Amino acid sequence: MAEYRQGRQSFVLPQPPVITAWASTAGKKESEGPHAHTFDITSQDTMFGQRTWEQAEKQMQRLTLGKLAEKANMRMTDFKLVFSGDLLNQCIGSSFSLRNTGIPHLGLYGACSTMAESLLLASMAVGGGFLDHAVAMTSSHFASSERQYRFPLGYGGQRTPTSQWTVTGSGAALVCRDGSGPRITGCTIGTVTDLGVRDANNMGSAMAPAAYATITAHLRDFGKSPVDYDLIVTGDLGQMGKEMLLELAKRDGLSLGGRLEDCGALIFDRENQDVHAGGSGCGCSAVMLCGYLLDRLNTGKLKSILFCGTGALLSPTSTQQGLPIPGVCHAVIVEGGRN
Amino acid sequence: MAEYRQGRQSFVLPQPPVITAWASTAGKKESEGPHAHTFDITSQDTMFGQRTWEQAEKQMQRLTLGKLAEKANMRMTDFKLVFSGDLLNQCIGSSFSLRNTGIPHLGLYGACSTMAESLLLASMAVGGGFLDHAVAMTSSHFASSERQYRFPLGYGGQRTPTSQWTVTGSGAALVCRDGSGPRITGCTIGTVTDLGVRDANNMGSAMAPAAYATITAHLRDFGKSPVDYDLIVTGDLGQMGKEMLLELAKRDGLSLGGRLEDCGALIFDRENQDVHAGGSGCGCSAVMLCGYLLDRLNTGKLKSILFCGTGALLSPTSTQQGLPIPGVCHAVIVEGGRN
Repeated sequence: MAEYRQGRQSFVLPQPPVITAWASTAGKKESEGPHAHTFDITSQDTMFGQRTWEQAEKQMQRLTLGKLAEKANMRMTDFKLVFSGDLLNQCIGSSFSLRNTGIPHLGLYGACSTMAESLLLASMAVGGGFLDHAVAMTSSHFASSERQYRFPLGYGGQRTPTSQWTVTGSGAALVCRDGSGPRITGCTIGTVTDLGVRDANNMGSAMAPAAYATITAHLRDFGKSPVDYDLIVTGDLGQMGKEMLLELAKRDGLSLGGRLEDCGALIFDRENQDVHAGGSGCGCSAVMLCGYLLDRLNTGKLKSILFCGTGALLSPTSTQQGLPIPGVCHAVIVEGGRN
Repeated sequence: MAEYRQGRQSFVLPQPPVITAWASTAGKKESEGPHAHTFDITSQDTMFGQRTWEQAEKQMQRLTLGKLAEKANMRMTDFKLVFSGDLLNQCIGSSFSLRNTGIPHLGLYGACSTMAESLLLASMAVGGGFLDHAVAMTSSHFASSERQYRFPLGYGGQRTPTSQWTVTGSGAALVCRDGSGPRITGCTIGTVTDLGVRDANNMGSAMAPAAYATITAHLRDFGKSPVDYDLIVTGDLGQMGKEMLLELAKRDGLSLGGRLEDCGALIFDRENQDVHAGGSGCGCSAVMLCGYLLDRLNTGKLKSILFCGTGALLSPTSTQQGLPIPGVCHAVIVEGGRN
């Protein structure tokens, strides 16, 4: 039986679900970055053979799910449950990718925290004994995000130094009751945290307070210190947000012990790829988890990480109405496989 | 331990979570309908004292959560987890309602199926032993929906006979490990189903195939017949969608035995309230469940129902791009309390 830390935000998984397979698809720019070799599928066609950016995003999810099935030696239609969501209005990347596949689907909205949220819920579903496996998946696409949140690409709007580059990519993980691979041993559910940041071109800073709130809640709930993990890895704070998070910790006298990394700061070569503060989007932490991080956990190069998906819960409407940007962060402990 | 029906879409809850409290908030038009007396809070001000429709929706969720806490004899900050989502882009009704409350939050997107989806996930979280209670909540608002999905209200667009009226309302249910009240004994997770309906002004018909797929999967997985329930109640098919669902069943020779009802067909007086095919929106099934239905289950007037949340997974973008409207439906068995 799972155990909930009373009055707190975390739960442990006494029978840790196992991530037995993972897969990722990434776009052109991502395939020119330092982690290109860790992605399963890359494409030089940012339309992925589709007629619209939105359908390209759907297609990335389809490709990722197909690759996941292949790596797990299953058929795609064998999947019993997919937890997924994306950044598109009404999450049409996720719903169209699963359309008429016959795969049961529970849709999520956690903005860029969706990889962690879906992993957390898949762990709950499997760890609670409801089914023997579940898929956690998400995606984002640079072009669909720019149009929806900012400007159409053809407008050629100038990007501020604090802005981040939405990753074109999709990642999926298969969470199983049995099997071998990295294990999920505990999770911390985030709260909607907002310190009043209103700059929609500085989302890393808007999300940093949520990341800090969840990381400190996690350490408190589990009685742990940052050095108990090889890596505390946030989703897409980027360089600005990462610095803000370190500053928040410093103010409280909390040392993150050199353990902090951020998928958004890692995924691109910021010197040469013109991405300003780094990568962002649901796909950012998804492809870094379902490639680089899980690969290293699986081969023992990393023993344990705290994977902290970070999401900015704004909409263009809330920004136009002058409201601040609430953030959320969900954290999942992933420990190295036993092989 | 929960039991998942192997290879199928359903799970049973051997230790059924209990809905110990429920609360609802509804708008002006809803408070003039036949179920006005079952709502906890009604307002003649459709802005709910806020400056924007979106903030009005946030406020409805806040009021509902406050009323739920009051009815459960708790403080709002005692809630350990809220599963919620809404129809607004990036679900800002839900994230802003929980902003800086310190309540852990997992965001969902299931379109108008969100009340059933949140109830299903709260049952999983509680039934799996992860925590002793969780809240399931959602909302919708006529004016924010019209502007986002169709036209600004000031435009005065004419409504087609098949169109439905988005309910202004919010509902929340407290799902507990212990206590007295209606119990959740099993759930069926929906698949994304699409028979090619493309008319965004006839969403009931677009969702009917998903409802039919989930209801038949449910009956198959549990070996049940429609007459095993007092009521099979869909979310917001409205009159057109309800007729389409009956037609789909008739074609297969399945009699729903007079058990079918629809929250969208029930909530308004269609003769006198000029709502065309009926009510719709996340709030529609939410206020009908967290009022009329749970009240009747609690007093024994209903013994058991199959609550089927129905969602149309379209976006204005997918419609403008000429795509059909996928639907989803999640079903939750709710049985009457033992008092």
